Amino acid sequence: MGKVTLVGERELRALVPLDRAAIDAVRGAFLALASGRVIMPPILSMAMPEVHGEVDVKTAFVPGLDGFAVKISPGFFDNPKRGFPSVNGLMVLLSTQTGLVEAVFLDNGWLTDVRTAAAGAVAADALARPDARIATVLGAGTQARLQMQALALVRDLAEIRVWARDAVKAAACAADIEAATGVPTRAAAEPRRALAGADVVVTTTPATAPILFAGWLAPGQHVTAMGSDADTKTELEPAVLARADRLVVDSLAQSRRLGELRAAIAAGVLPHDFACPELGVVLSGAAPGRPGSDAITVCDLTGTGAQDTAIATLARARVADAGAGLTTDT
Amino acid sequence: MGKVTLVGERELRALVPLDRAAIDAVRGAFLALASGRVIMPPILSMAMPEVHGEVDVKTAFVPGLDGFAVKISPGFFDNPKRGFPSVNGLMVLLSTQTGLVEAVFLDNGWLTDVRTAAAGAVAADALARPDARIATVLGAGTQARLQMQALALVRDLAEIRVWARDAVKAAACAADIEAATGVPTRAAAEPRRALAGADVVVTTTPATAPILFAGWLAPGQHVTAMGSDADTKTELEPAVLARADRLVVDSLAQSRRLGELRAAIAAGVLPHDFACPELGVVLSGAAPGRPGSDAITVCDLTGTGAQDTAIATLARARVADAGAGLTTDT
Repeated sequence: MGKVTLVGERELRALVPLDRAAIDAVRGAFLALASGRVIMPPILSMAMPEVHGEVDVKTAFVPGLDGFAVKISPGFFDNPKRGFPSVNGLMVLLSTQTGLVEAVFLDNGWLTDVRTAAAGAVAADALARPDARIATVLGAGTQARLQMQALALVRDLAEIRVWARDAVKAAACAADIEAATGVPTRAAAEPRRALAGADVVVTTTPATAPILFAGWLAPGQHVTAMGSDADTKTELEPAVLARADRLVVDSLAQSRRLGELRAAIAAGVLPHDFACPELGVVLSGAAPGRPGSDAITVCDLTGTGAQDTAIATLARARVADAGAGLTTDT
Repeated sequence: MGKVTLVGERELRALVPLDRAAIDAVRGAFLALASGRVIMPPILSMAMPEVHGEVDVKTAFVPGLDGFAVKISPGFFDNPKRGFPSVNGLMVLLSTQTGLVEAVFLDNGWLTDVRTAAAGAVAADALARPDARIATVLGAGTQARLQMQALALVRDLAEIRVWARDAVKAAACAADIEAATGVPTRAAAEPRRALAGADVVVTTTPATAPILFAGWLAPGQHVTAMGSDADTKTELEPAVLARADRLVVDSLAQSRRLGELRAAIAAGVLPHDFACPELGVVLSGAAPGRPGSDAITVCDLTGTGAQDTAIATLARARVADAGAGLTTDT
């Protein structure tokens, strides 16, 4: 009936790197969200405690794009024991004209990694001081690396600091970031000191209790918290949100359920019906961004289906240009 | 990282026909649902009115099966004008041990067609009289054909009648059913007369207002309504449910939201918190089936993720046995 293009992880890593085009695609997704015309249903989430696994499915229709992605993200937490990453999965791109399947990206989560890091760059570009030079990342996983690579594409960094509970992992992460960005990067022994003097702070952990505290913040800093995407997670002490001069989230509905707003509301620090601007609204100019160079800005990212649709659309274009993938009749 | 097997519609039609094994697999899914250990989250549903389209995503974890399916079912209602079917889509099978993608079935809805028709056979086998000989189907689409093929696998039919609003389509459907089943089949001019004397009645339409009325029913009949799977659809006059001596549904949660229970509750014919046995509970023997040969039995089917997981598991076994599909590294 139709033709479907199948593309594996290796090809996708080569064709869809974390670059300015990826950041622009994700910025476009947030702007579309602000238009109010994006359709983004609640995430389908299934926990399978019997097998220590879960699966999330996200989708979004973004007017103007000729495809929409359905992303299947499983997380199986015994995988590292077996030598596999916990999170993998795939994205399916369907036509917005016919609903026919156009592409299956067997990316093992790579496109999610890219669109997640790109969102961090979009947030920092919108909210951090233009002259930001020092960045600190908390966490030492894939996103710690990619968030710093993405940030280096939108700010002229002079120094990067990495803190993680495991000092060995922090050192390895710092070496990887320096190799990837060319920015002098070092592991920090203590998170509070890693934050002192930093212009941009990005938290990238699966923490279930705060790892960043309001008392550590100083005027002029920007914080992006991208770790919490479940109602069991939180990285920021609720007082961080209260202290922010400007608080922004990628999706109010999601941040209230899965992100930092959830924990702050649960703690009574923010009211039940708390609202703040979404990132796309700030990007569009309809809500103000950074109030001044001495302000503290905070952005919470939970990850949206609109980003998936945007990155899958970019991937399809790159795959078509390269004549890559395997095209099969269905 | 892993190996993924890709299989197209043509191969799947050949390897996973509507047969007794498919019916047994779907019966197993309903029994599993009755065990209370199946995890089946609400359907992810996204309407895209701007493009006259929608997409549904279903999944279910069935203990004892080593994979779980995530099914993506788009419906794009301008497709027939373009020469495509409205509904197509694919199923992804993931490992319950690792969450890794094991197979992508580019089936354009074929596996759904099979598991849906198989559920009709399971319902009739559980609830229709063992000596049922005459079947009537309302509707003349794919499911009208497949429901009668499935029914012919569980009952020794002597006559099949087809009614649809479009008499030309009804005649074509009758000819197809007779060719597929060998059972004498004719189109009926009028639905009430098509029901008179029938032992099993199956409704297979996307009707948004009742097409089958309580006054038409006679003792000893069994009715399966499989058309309604959305909160805009209904095939049975609410009084049909009230008149049933035994009413059964595939999933109470789904039937209340998307199936015949919804319309009957909305009409005030059934109470808001109405409950009746689910099909799996009847199959397990924990709830009674047909009370006697003169009873009227009714089963509402909305379609469950557990059926998708069951049929995808069968498909994977058949594909592996045949060495079919295209296996690729990811």
